[in-house]
Amino acid sequence: MAEKNLPLGREALEKLTETYPTPFHLYDEQAIRENARRFYKVFDWIDGFRNHFAVKACPNPAILSILREEGMGVDCSSLSELILAERTGFKGEEIVFTSNDTPPDEFREAARLGAVINLDDISHIGELERAAGLPELISFRYNPGKARSGNVLIGEPHEAKYGLTGEQVLEAYRITKEKGVKRFGLHTMVASNELDSAYFVETARMLFELAVRIKDGSGAEIELINMGGGIGIPYRPDDQAVDLGYISEEMQKLYRQIIVPAGLDPLKVVFECGRLVTGPYGFLVSRVLHVSRKYKDYVGLDSCMANLMRPGLYGAYHHITVPGKEGQSFDHFYDVTGSLCENSDKFAIDRQLPKIEKGDLVVIHDTGAHGYSMGFNYNGKLRSAELLLKEDGSVELIRRAETIDDYFSTMRFPEAPA
Amino acid sequence: MAEKNLPLGREALEKLTETYPTPFHLYDEQAIRENARRFYKVFDWIDGFRNHFAVKACPNPAILSILREEGMGVDCSSLSELILAERTGFKGEEIVFTSNDTPPDEFREAARLGAVINLDDISHIGELERAAGLPELISFRYNPGKARSGNVLIGEPHEAKYGLTGEQVLEAYRITKEKGVKRFGLHTMVASNELDSAYFVETARMLFELAVRIKDGSGAEIELINMGGGIGIPYRPDDQAVDLGYISEEMQKLYRQIIVPAGLDPLKVVFECGRLVTGPYGFLVSRVLHVSRKYKDYVGLDSCMANLMRPGLYGAYHHITVPGKEGQSFDHFYDVTGSLCENSDKFAIDRQLPKIEKGDLVVIHDTGAHGYSMGFNYNGKLRSAELLLKEDGSVELIRRAETIDDYFSTMRFPEAPA
Repeated sequence: MAEKNLPLGREALEKLTETYPTPFHLYDEQAIRENARRFYKVFDWIDGFRNHFAVKACPNPAILSILREEGMGVDCSSLSELILAERTGFKGEEIVFTSNDTPPDEFREAARLGAVINLDDISHIGELERAAGLPELISFRYNPGKARSGNVLIGEPHEAKYGLTGEQVLEAYRITKEKGVKRFGLHTMVASNELDSAYFVETARMLFELAVRIKDGSGAEIELINMGGGIGIPYRPDDQAVDLGYISEEMQKLYRQIIVPAGLDPLKVVFECGRLVTGPYGFLVSRVLHVSRKYKDYVGLDSCMANLMRPGLYGAYHHITVPGKEGQSFDHFYDVTGSLCENSDKFAIDRQLPKIEKGDLVVIHDTGAHGYSMGFNYNGKLRSAELLLKEDGSVELIRRAETIDDYFSTMRFPEAPA
Repeated sequence: MAEKNLPLGREALEKLTETYPTPFHLYDEQAIRENARRFYKVFDWIDGFRNHFAVKACPNPAILSILREEGMGVDCSSLSELILAERTGFKGEEIVFTSNDTPPDEFREAARLGAVINLDDISHIGELERAAGLPELISFRYNPGKARSGNVLIGEPHEAKYGLTGEQVLEAYRITKEKGVKRFGLHTMVASNELDSAYFVETARMLFELAVRIKDGSGAEIELINMGGGIGIPYRPDDQAVDLGYISEEMQKLYRQIIVPAGLDPLKVVFECGRLVTGPYGFLVSRVLHVSRKYKDYVGLDSCMANLMRPGLYGAYHHITVPGKEGQSFDHFYDVTGSLCENSDKFAIDRQLPKIEKGDLVVIHDTGAHGYSMGFNYNGKLRSAELLLKEDGSVELIRRAETIDDYFSTMRFPEAPA
């Protein structure tokens, strides 16, 4: 079986746990930076190429700062994320604000920051106008409906709550142009965790052609195309990663075929990938509390869905390694469980692993996106610390673990009973 | 269509929102108390009957205090829940501690509190002994495996991570009796949100018969049978509630047939229901931010999965009413969505409702259990306040809403960028 690498071996991890008790999330700075540079290099034919990192994937200031240093922007979808972006040093059009069900104060905050506001609905034109006035640049989220198929994670576009329909989108640009908006963006997001490279080429074609139709139909000249995110990562060791080089080349051909002849060149193309950027470079490090034999064999960890929801929530695959046991034969089958009082709290079912003993360290891979950020406090479970393995090999605490006091902080206790 | 009642009408709710902005959870004290009394009355043939409220369903000190006043105990499954129970005034065997993947400090805390410790695995005997010594009273969680079928929510028992197998359970009592344990409990939990009354009668039969086998096989005399929870509530207006009276009567017959002849009378029978106790008496009150027409019609609320996960997570049905529009014809179909940047964040799909307008209040029913407690902060969303409608008609804030500062509290910001 193909294996996945760890940035630290058993000994180094054990040493780390002397300072930081398990469970914790560990991020690999060097790998994040190298990956960001590869991503940018592949698309260097695009003038002003940018990836707006989806903050929800990993809302940690240290990680966001690294990505800012690598030239990335951010994609925000709530007031908290906008404030986090500002506090981490992102400015103006480095920030995209995409939100589908938006209160006026969020529109105002996005406008104050000079963010690219990406409207989800035609009625939001009026909402934004009333809340903050219309900015110079407006973007719309397009939902192709039955013209495209989605995937399991995000659902079919025509049943999705997002975006403007084909008819509405032309009207939206006409209306905003009439109202004096000068600059225009176009956005879509039709897949999530998709590994088929051709899918993204089709998305580029769809948006490029739509940009031309928008110019013809409304006079609005799109200057910014946001391809959305949704580029998957190979969670399973045998999964094939998306071929960014192929996507870039095909996009460049389409750009020359569609955008240039329409007089829309230069046009900036951006992405809003989160998972692709940090997903593979985060690791949930746990310790085995119990190994037990019931009707099946179970390995019980000191982490749970509070630290990583995806397996329990979607049945998502996350690779698991047992540091120090890489060379042993994988001759045991275990359900690897969390400590939540919910039977769905399993990190893996019938996973083939080396023999596991109480006290072993266990690493769950690919938790760098939608890992910590999706955690809850159900069952009174506390969310763990986040650590950064820096380029110089040192490790820094970039988020402290929650404490019982955090858990109690919003509660109000009645007078103590007699 | 059958409708569900609200404890407050539109006008009273609107007035409330002047002090407490939506969204918020509202609990009905009088209904909670009346329901608790009905529950206890039905089982009054059992000497020392008690329901140990599953704290995870609604971990709010004010709600727990009400339940304590009504004679309930608590069922805890983590350190935080144990501490919450103590701080709310629960003592000794009013507390049951059931945990499947337990660190030593949790065993120690449960022992310190004098809680009934309910062990999930035969290997936990040694764990508990090393952590805190064996207490006078020990309970074990029994997993019947293929002898019973579970349901969709909890899965099949033989694939569940919980409990001791049929063989292990006898051995466990033998071992602990030998080690000097004097008093014994027996627990199971084989269903979740189950509406079939007969299922619970079968669970009683299973446990009563097992208690006799345990006595015969190990000499341990069970004095406490914990039926678990899992009693469902009628989320849909047409669902039939569980018939507690029937369950109680049938259990009493089985008690006379099985327990009395075996010389196990008096034997205390308890439950650990959460959902049944508070579920129907909590309401998520939201306001409509947007009504939009895309490929379907959408109602966008100011709440989201951060406030209520069940619909987005399981596709669970929660009834929705629009206060003030009770008399109107239900001639519109809407997807009622939350504001999360996730397409799964829908409270209802194709729900038949009266015509909804921006600004309407919308109430989501049956959020009194597994509502607030399952919320997360994904997308930077903040968890809402909890309010108590008291018996005198006044309303008290029993949990403050989260703030942006809460959201930032565990983060570490690098030096401000230049």
